[in-house]
Amino acid sequence: MEKFEVNILGCGSALPTTRHFSSSQVVNIREKLFMIDCGEGAQLQLRRSKLKFTRLNHIFISHLHGDHCFGLMGLISTFGLLGRTAKLHIYAHEQLEKLLRPQLDFFCKGMTYEVEFHSIDPTQATVIYEDRSVTVSTIPLKHRIPSCGFLFQEKKTPNHIIRDMIDFYQIPVYELNRIKNGEDYITPDGTVIPNQRLTTPSAEPRSYAYCSDTIHLPGIIPQIKGTDLLFHEATFMHEDVVRAQETFHTTAQQAAETARDANVKQLVIGHFSARYEDETLLLKESQAIFANTLLAKENLKITL
Amino acid sequence: MEKFEVNILGCGSALPTTRHFSSSQVVNIREKLFMIDCGEGAQLQLRRSKLKFTRLNHIFISHLHGDHCFGLMGLISTFGLLGRTAKLHIYAHEQLEKLLRPQLDFFCKGMTYEVEFHSIDPTQATVIYEDRSVTVSTIPLKHRIPSCGFLFQEKKTPNHIIRDMIDFYQIPVYELNRIKNGEDYITPDGTVIPNQRLTTPSAEPRSYAYCSDTIHLPGIIPQIKGTDLLFHEATFMHEDVVRAQETFHTTAQQAAETARDANVKQLVIGHFSARYEDETLLLKESQAIFANTLLAKENLKITL
Repeated sequence: MEKFEVNILGCGSALPTTRHFSSSQVVNIREKLFMIDCGEGAQLQLRRSKLKFTRLNHIFISHLHGDHCFGLMGLISTFGLLGRTAKLHIYAHEQLEKLLRPQLDFFCKGMTYEVEFHSIDPTQATVIYEDRSVTVSTIPLKHRIPSCGFLFQEKKTPNHIIRDMIDFYQIPVYELNRIKNGEDYITPDGTVIPNQRLTTPSAEPRSYAYCSDTIHLPGIIPQIKGTDLLFHEATFMHEDVVRAQETFHTTAQQAAETARDANVKQLVIGHFSARYEDETLLLKESQAIFANTLLAKENLKITL
Repeated sequence: MEKFEVNILGCGSALPTTRHFSSSQVVNIREKLFMIDCGEGAQLQLRRSKLKFTRLNHIFISHLHGDHCFGLMGLISTFGLLGRTAKLHIYAHEQLEKLLRPQLDFFCKGMTYEVEFHSIDPTQATVIYEDRSVTVSTIPLKHRIPSCGFLFQEKKTPNHIIRDMIDFYQIPVYELNRIKNGEDYITPDGTVIPNQRLTTPSAEPRSYAYCSDTIHLPGIIPQIKGTDLLFHEATFMHEDVVRAQETFHTTAQQAAETARDANVKQLVIGHFSARYEDETLLLKESQAIFANTLLAKENLKITL
């Protein structure tokens, strides 16, 4: 199966601890790397992950709090020092470009590559990136400032041809693409050979949803229904639900409820408040409602 | 003896490695903390060091390359989240305030404390900070952009009074400050009691010089003469001296020559290029010329 992996670079929340870096992840889809959020230290963690810097061309920023974007300048600057030439695309609230531009002009003068900002509207579920194999859409969230998650969806790949059957019916090569895409074959004498006899279905397309930072928001359930993996913030334990509401964050219990109601296959919780020394308590709270929960941690790699 | 310690938070150079954080140090003088440079991850390393955040009120930035200042926004922002109220003073090239102000206004809106920028002229050796016990001066350096080091000098403290002698001569209390400061005592009958019989000298004031980033610059020697500790960049081995000159950096051998010629007591080298896997080679090169050389490393604490 083609690669579809999520690499956690950092999963702490606003206050740094010695346990966690701030938010950053890399989604690896067939060796194309997509970064989600870029907290301070993301470039260091990227280096540790041994993921190839040159494979990273797209960065998605959920919202403009420092713990989700203070690592950008360092990363951009390092790419420049390494002689990168490919354009780097950053998808974020339009304000980000205004905030970074003076520093880019100063610190990255004469850099060998270009940074292009793509302004996203966090209030609409919109496709913001698309290539041959994947689409990325925004997931509107609700936080103290405009915020959105990201949904990575593999495209369905063509069915696999059964070589022996092609030979048996002596099907000409120019028919093969149509058959891969699900059509039946009609022999010269008019017999219809149903597609199921000629192909085996390709793997089901996989999907990954990243939801952080947000208050508990059941409204996202239709959009993330059935995803293979959901990363959801779980900043607080449910005993601190009042604090979660005040700060527009989610509790581990609420994250699990969302995972259960959206019928996702697996949940990984992160963005932990610094107040919890023992994060297994967050895990247990979530697992009580949604058993297939993982606890995010630095350098964790999850294969879909 | 009063505390005078240098804590290395990061000692790598521009390219991050898994071995090093970028440049940052904290000088602890009698539990007042002074940060020098603030590369990405400095706040994380400060947390690891267990130094008290609230004791840090002054940050000195040597020059405006990203590996010396990209950690500022995260540090400032975290101080805000922690409810800091004391003003934070940043001493740097005037351009820094212009670069950070838009981000400060956006990310740190409503913060409970103030950041005050003090513009420094890196081309002049000037006292830029002074309190009861210490002065900090710039050390003009030569790099690709304006750059300066920093010289921390303890002030001489008053001599220690010999209690028994004070009692013996029945010296009144109001005379004591004058005696501590070195004056002789004249008894009511006119006899002069020399100061040396009444006091023991206080400890010699200590000094620390930080020199990074710079090309090999013997011109700094008069200013750093006899310092107790010199931190000098040693980005390259001397076999790469051409590269050092091109990039306005120093080799380990050159750093050692400066330490020797300035007759400092101890040298610590840092700001290592990512190209050297085995940094003990840099250490050996320096020690061949100046034996009392230390290799900087993260979390190293040097007591003066």
